[in-house]
Amino acid sequence: MKIVLAQTKFHKANIAKNCEVILQDIENAKTKNVSLIIFPEMATTAGYVGTLTQYSDFEIELNKAFESLKTASKNIDILIGSYNICNNQFRNAILLFQNGEMTHLLNRADTKNYTSKFSHKNTDFEVCFYKNIEQISNSKSDNFIVYGDTPFTINLRNQRIEKLQNIAKSQKIRTIYINNVGAFDNEIFDGGSLIINKNGEVIKELNLFSEEIYLSSNQEDIINKDKNYAEEYLILEALKLAINSYFSTIGARKAVIGLSGGIDSAVVAAVAVLALGAKNVHGILMPSDFSTDHSISDAEILAKNLGMSYDTISIKDAYKSVNNSLDPIWKEKKFDVTEENIQARIRAIFLMAYSNKNGHLVLNTSNKSEASVGYGTLYGDLSGSLSILGDLYKHQVYSLAEFINSEKEIIPQNSITKEPSGELSPNQKDTDSLPEYDILDAILFQHLENRKSGFEIVEMGYNREIVEKILKMIRRNEYKRFQYPPIIKISEFAYTVDRKMPLNWDI
Amino acid sequence: MKIVLAQTKFHKANIAKNCEVILQDIENAKTKNVSLIIFPEMATTAGYVGTLTQYSDFEIELNKAFESLKTASKNIDILIGSYNICNNQFRNAILLFQNGEMTHLLNRADTKNYTSKFSHKNTDFEVCFYKNIEQISNSKSDNFIVYGDTPFTINLRNQRIEKLQNIAKSQKIRTIYINNVGAFDNEIFDGGSLIINKNGEVIKELNLFSEEIYLSSNQEDIINKDKNYAEEYLILEALKLAINSYFSTIGARKAVIGLSGGIDSAVVAAVAVLALGAKNVHGILMPSDFSTDHSISDAEILAKNLGMSYDTISIKDAYKSVNNSLDPIWKEKKFDVTEENIQARIRAIFLMAYSNKNGHLVLNTSNKSEASVGYGTLYGDLSGSLSILGDLYKHQVYSLAEFINSEKEIIPQNSITKEPSGELSPNQKDTDSLPEYDILDAILFQHLENRKSGFEIVEMGYNREIVEKILKMIRRNEYKRFQYPPIIKISEFAYTVDRKMPLNWDI
Repeated sequence: MKIVLAQTKFHKANIAKNCEVILQDIENAKTKNVSLIIFPEMATTAGYVGTLTQYSDFEIELNKAFESLKTASKNIDILIGSYNICNNQFRNAILLFQNGEMTHLLNRADTKNYTSKFSHKNTDFEVCFYKNIEQISNSKSDNFIVYGDTPFTINLRNQRIEKLQNIAKSQKIRTIYINNVGAFDNEIFDGGSLIINKNGEVIKELNLFSEEIYLSSNQEDIINKDKNYAEEYLILEALKLAINSYFSTIGARKAVIGLSGGIDSAVVAAVAVLALGAKNVHGILMPSDFSTDHSISDAEILAKNLGMSYDTISIKDAYKSVNNSLDPIWKEKKFDVTEENIQARIRAIFLMAYSNKNGHLVLNTSNKSEASVGYGTLYGDLSGSLSILGDLYKHQVYSLAEFINSEKEIIPQNSITKEPSGELSPNQKDTDSLPEYDILDAILFQHLENRKSGFEIVEMGYNREIVEKILKMIRRNEYKRFQYPPIIKISEFAYTVDRKMPLNWDI
Repeated sequence: MKIVLAQTKFHKANIAKNCEVILQDIENAKTKNVSLIIFPEMATTAGYVGTLTQYSDFEIELNKAFESLKTASKNIDILIGSYNICNNQFRNAILLFQNGEMTHLLNRADTKNYTSKFSHKNTDFEVCFYKNIEQISNSKSDNFIVYGDTPFTINLRNQRIEKLQNIAKSQKIRTIYINNVGAFDNEIFDGGSLIINKNGEVIKELNLFSEEIYLSSNQEDIINKDKNYAEEYLILEALKLAINSYFSTIGARKAVIGLSGGIDSAVVAAVAVLALGAKNVHGILMPSDFSTDHSISDAEILAKNLGMSYDTISIKDAYKSVNNSLDPIWKEKKFDVTEENIQARIRAIFLMAYSNKNGHLVLNTSNKSEASVGYGTLYGDLSGSLSILGDLYKHQVYSLAEFINSEKEIIPQNSITKEPSGELSPNQKDTDSLPEYDILDAILFQHLENRKSGFEIVEMGYNREIVEKILKMIRRNEYKRFQYPPIIKISEFAYTVDRKMPLNWDI
């Protein structure tokens, strides 16, 4: 029995194009006498498409695809994840196309039936979604097919291998895991489809973060050695995949980044160059009266190390002009956060102007620590098409920088070691208004990821005043995150997608 | 039997403060020998609070409130909507406090039990949520208490009166409808709690859009005349309530608005003055090289009519300075959308600077027609703390302007009658890049509200090329709406909250 795992890239909401890809994969499989081809979850639409399912052309396109798959299934069985109508609603389902007919096997939303069975070549197969595998017991089937339905997080790969090995071993069942690869909006699917034998040994792990069509002859005997990946490697590959998917979906190729000489913009530039190629990434240095010499030279060295082009545009004249225009309306003129924000917003004007003129997408450079406490200027440095680091705490940005530098210095060491500064006022340091990042990140992690209340964090030994200040900053800055660019999700608790908070509240 | 309907304003996510309000209402009721007091849905938290329920202090605060309510219920029965634990999760529930004990009556998420009964003074009461009233049949109770759970939309009030009258009449049951009043984030609850007798006659309708504590003696015999409200009246009151709630929740009092002389900013200024008072609203006129004389004079007349203060700051110098700074990096210099956006973004810098310096919140002035097709500049005129008109099509903005002007001219007639223009390039008109608004709005309405696909709209007789262009613009501008300010919801299909679309897709 020859089975193909089609870990193929699909196109968001484009049923016709995905159907073409699927039919091509099927044709290729037929030439190799494959009897069963397995496509991942929501293959016809590349994930959820929300309100689009309420339009009649969605149903028309989907039915067309199903008709093609019925026809294609006359000499091969096709197992595929797709939207399908169930009780008048489109549901995330697993479908089997066999002998020209379609069978609806399973709904992901079904809370009563966690698995469904089908027979192929006199062998029993049982399918289920990954989220429900812990509900499974006493399977009497020969093969278990688990549908990956969980977006990438740093620990996902190791967790799923362990869980699936346990299932295979405890139930003595050959287990196949089929996953998507690609990024849809800000969620990443990391591939890494699996075949695990009934002893719980990993026979095959398909590519992480890239496509692979794998032909399994059911006779594999090479046990993969257990690979281990550094956390930073997984994050880097995930970010690259997300950037590439975002750009290719909208037909863009080029990115522009404001280079400050600091670590965040340096890491974003490095990741963008790794994802898109140096010739597709442009930097803009935008020094001000408060920029230090090393900021400019660090940014220039970075651009040269990466082989990317850059321009330098001083914001001094525009800053002076904006201030002169505003001066007559101020009752008293005193430098405060207003003027800091004006600088950040002029930089955003320059970046967006470059984007408008040349078609480059602006990449946002702020990180999760900053997003949490609102350290950044709305419509200034918080702008951009896509936030690359918005789900990485500052300490994770440092680790990623070290990882990128592991073979040779790409990010100037000075950007890594110098004290972080917004450089928006004389001798400004991040620590003027924030605690040290190691303390900030630890408190944020307890509050966000571990859902610890303030008093619980204080009980762990953190300073009450600092904890209360940080929690208040998180609460007060929900409005900035409301208008944030989409953030690439890499944690289990990413802003925008995983955290649903009142916009304003009354405490 | 004396019953109180407590249509009280609550405070978002502030359980302690809401508990105080509730206990005060109970004390007042006790002095009038009331035996049953009814509070609306989610009274302890003022609506849903999302991830906040996952924190231990949420549970602690809620339990404290419950203990207070138990104590308070020794001489009065208290019916109240609140989060309550059910199967380890916090659920939207209806609770009864009676004789010092708490009874969990009903979960809103429960799909098996739509109603629950309790007895008060030997009379049977049956409670249910508004969303489920059509599931109710053959009630044997004496009184029906329906919990309002649906945010304001233009037709909601008339729909609910009709539905509730039908229930009362068909089942011969006295029907009480209890609703919240206030706006939580961008959803509005419009009050208008009801008492309907068993003949289906409205005995009492509590205030729309404001608080009212109503003591019902069960002996009402004055049948309210059926009031009818103009659509524009309902919209205006809803927007005012939303603005006031938004501001009071975050402790802000003052707003700043960019006045262009056009209809959108004029209507926003008028609504803001009606909501916050003229002394709390400041306008900024920001003329450019492309501004016409009438734009400035129309804006000035508006500000004078409204009695609001304003400043005039030309963007000419800053625009020139930004362009001069950018000039050296352009390969060829040609005026295009880049320069249009620069103007809009300089205006946003001025408005945000005013906001930063003086604590005013910037009100966004763009409308639903513009939001749909992406007519507007991200980080420019699409910025702001709150979008007032983002759920009103352009033709609704005109109607609202006429309504505001119905007694005397507040919005200059010229702002209403002149052809809409962004004034970002010489002699620019909205119709240079958009169809006439009556056609645009009609196509948008069919596509958004009525979920008509392109081919269906063409079948209705609209020009295919225009329909396809508009649908493409909607699709292509999801990224702008992703970073939009919160939009006050007044329709059944408001952006951001009701429409879940892929951010980018591949068609």
